[in-house]
Amino acid sequence: MENKELNSSSITVGGLYDMLLDSVNKEDSRPVIRLGRVDPTDNPLFRTTTVALDAITTAIHSLNFNCYPPTLGLLEAKIAVADHLSSHLPHKLSAENVFLTIGGTQAIDIILPSLARPGANILLPKPGYPQYELRASRCNLEVRHFDLLPERGWEVDLDSLETLADENTVALALVSPSSPCGNVFAYEHLKRVAEIASKLGIYVISDEVYAHVVFGSKQFVPMGEFSSIVPVITIGSFSKRWLIPGWRIGWIAICDPRGIFQKSGVVSKIIDYVEITANPSTIVQAAIPEILKKTTNDFHSKNLDIMREIAKIFYDGCKEIPCLNCPQKPEGAMVVMVKINLSQLEGIVDDIQFCSKLAKEESVVLFPGVMVGLKNWLRFSLAVDPSDIKEGLSRVRAFGLRHAKRS
Amino acid sequence: MENKELNSSSITVGGLYDMLLDSVNKEDSRPVIRLGRVDPTDNPLFRTTTVALDAITTAIHSLNFNCYPPTLGLLEAKIAVADHLSSHLPHKLSAENVFLTIGGTQAIDIILPSLARPGANILLPKPGYPQYELRASRCNLEVRHFDLLPERGWEVDLDSLETLADENTVALALVSPSSPCGNVFAYEHLKRVAEIASKLGIYVISDEVYAHVVFGSKQFVPMGEFSSIVPVITIGSFSKRWLIPGWRIGWIAICDPRGIFQKSGVVSKIIDYVEITANPSTIVQAAIPEILKKTTNDFHSKNLDIMREIAKIFYDGCKEIPCLNCPQKPEGAMVVMVKINLSQLEGIVDDIQFCSKLAKEESVVLFPGVMVGLKNWLRFSLAVDPSDIKEGLSRVRAFGLRHAKRS
Repeated sequence: MENKELNSSSITVGGLYDMLLDSVNKEDSRPVIRLGRVDPTDNPLFRTTTVALDAITTAIHSLNFNCYPPTLGLLEAKIAVADHLSSHLPHKLSAENVFLTIGGTQAIDIILPSLARPGANILLPKPGYPQYELRASRCNLEVRHFDLLPERGWEVDLDSLETLADENTVALALVSPSSPCGNVFAYEHLKRVAEIASKLGIYVISDEVYAHVVFGSKQFVPMGEFSSIVPVITIGSFSKRWLIPGWRIGWIAICDPRGIFQKSGVVSKIIDYVEITANPSTIVQAAIPEILKKTTNDFHSKNLDIMREIAKIFYDGCKEIPCLNCPQKPEGAMVVMVKINLSQLEGIVDDIQFCSKLAKEESVVLFPGVMVGLKNWLRFSLAVDPSDIKEGLSRVRAFGLRHAKRS
Repeated sequence: MENKELNSSSITVGGLYDMLLDSVNKEDSRPVIRLGRVDPTDNPLFRTTTVALDAITTAIHSLNFNCYPPTLGLLEAKIAVADHLSSHLPHKLSAENVFLTIGGTQAIDIILPSLARPGANILLPKPGYPQYELRASRCNLEVRHFDLLPERGWEVDLDSLETLADENTVALALVSPSSPCGNVFAYEHLKRVAEIASKLGIYVISDEVYAHVVFGSKQFVPMGEFSSIVPVITIGSFSKRWLIPGWRIGWIAICDPRGIFQKSGVVSKIIDYVEITANPSTIVQAAIPEILKKTTNDFHSKNLDIMREIAKIFYDGCKEIPCLNCPQKPEGAMVVMVKINLSQLEGIVDDIQFCSKLAKEESVVLFPGVMVGLKNWLRFSLAVDPSDIKEGLSRVRAFGLRHAKRS
């Protein structure tokens, strides 16, 4: 693997995942431990609710939803998403504030071009989610990175925002709860982000595909809470919380009680884009109202219990590995960042080599931090079987000891 | 409705459909007759096969396909599509020749940018399918139109191809069986198209979303038949033939035994695009093998019988309407073009005004030909209840008589 080939605007998460899987030694009889891609269905303890299975089965067998979807999405589904979000917001959303998307990824693909104009730039978190860089590079949107600070529980480096922004900055994006860091942003911190964005005259994109996936001390606060301070576009998804990424369904929600996105033409641009692009399956759209109305709290809290347990196993296990340092116990989302102590290792120069050798020698697939913007860190998925976390950490430990520098 | 606002690169089929529906007089107590958008599920006689319903239900309840789809699509599904197509081709396709797409529309959205380069142009049929113009305009691909000739059964104006093409022409596209004309291209004619494309050094995009939907005297001939003469990219879909447009699933197939698309980098560009764009639902992909293996011939032939009957009702009915002229009895696809004899009408200047007044006065929704590139023609969907065809034509007749020029 040529390290120079890898940078986050030229390779996809899926592409890298496939490359690392290819590195695995086929003669290793142990099962491959996949801690790379964040697909909750990799964990056998996670299974979607029967409410979702029943809802889509009913939609299919009704024969009412084999038709093309309406251009701007099925009204009942949009109302259901608007109501679902409104129950956690100070103002009420309506169906016309909601656009249904093919997962959170297509939401990014729609929003970024809708904000782009010649010379424009966008502020993205580092570490972040690669699809933002990828899409920005395809729509001529210059990317400027602000840091998430591990020593401050992965909070946004607020001071840097004003330094980075200029008159061509259109928005800042934040993934909250945080992928890839696994932290949950506090109410006061998000409010500060909103206030700074407002002062700078830029929009906020709040990527909340992990909304409510919190299992530590902090509550999830939707950025829409502060949409009277700054206009907010929220991204949501059924993939992680309902454990159905393969259904490919998510949404864009315009949280903007002052109607600024409408006036500035951003909503028209989103509509233009949605009208000419691929839409989510009608059968999946049709299942949304039932899923949102009938999923029980028990389903969600059971899944959060599983995540809490995995986070503990991971954090405790990580402490036993001298070459790794996890700065913060994960308390949200399904992913975490860990620093490699390269000074303790012999013959490993960076995170890519670490991941490549680890795949080859230990059949463990992990993401190098450079993929999400942080060189010499690692990104672990926590959306896996707890026994895989234990086995994976045990192999990483053996790998680290084998490559330890002799002092 | 301002006529000047309408042109096929600025408005979508769905958008126009919604506008015409809005024109309908709400006080008309008669049901609205929709002969606009081609959605076969509008016809209650059309119902997808239980094979498809069972296949997706099994996929959902197996819980094996709630995961993210593999980046380049589910292997079993790609093998099934390759086998399905190969059974009608002189050479065998493999899974790597197939890409799964969100219907035929996304296939267009992937192929056109993969062929575009600065200064390039593409030859498109007139009349055609608007998504081609729309997508070409977004990827800086200049469009040049060749005529489909009504007086020759809607054959391609072969002579014009050489006049239109130059060293910057990358491909020609053809919808076969033909949307919007409803004709089926003969073997010899398609072979001539392939030979001319080969001579010009350009590729052929064959949009076969209506493959095998033929109910006249001519057989369907896949363009891949001639892929040893010219490299062919085929577009396919489950939408029309299996009556499930709402599932949003189709494919791109590379028919190119000489490997020219591979060598020229077109395949790499398609892969790059597929890797970063939205993918079809895993649950829908998982249903493909069963659908392709188990759908009976009876299912298809029953649907073709229905189409044959509708085509007859339409063609005979059309003859009774003095202001319309259908040059060719439909024998494929689910759509047909009809010329308006404007000279016989008073106070109607063009096709848009015809459709707009018709919607208002008769609650019949029809597409103006300008939407598909032929001014002062009409596009009728035949994918509707036969009784709607009869009632629709009866209202168009009344409309035409009411607006007839007094001589």
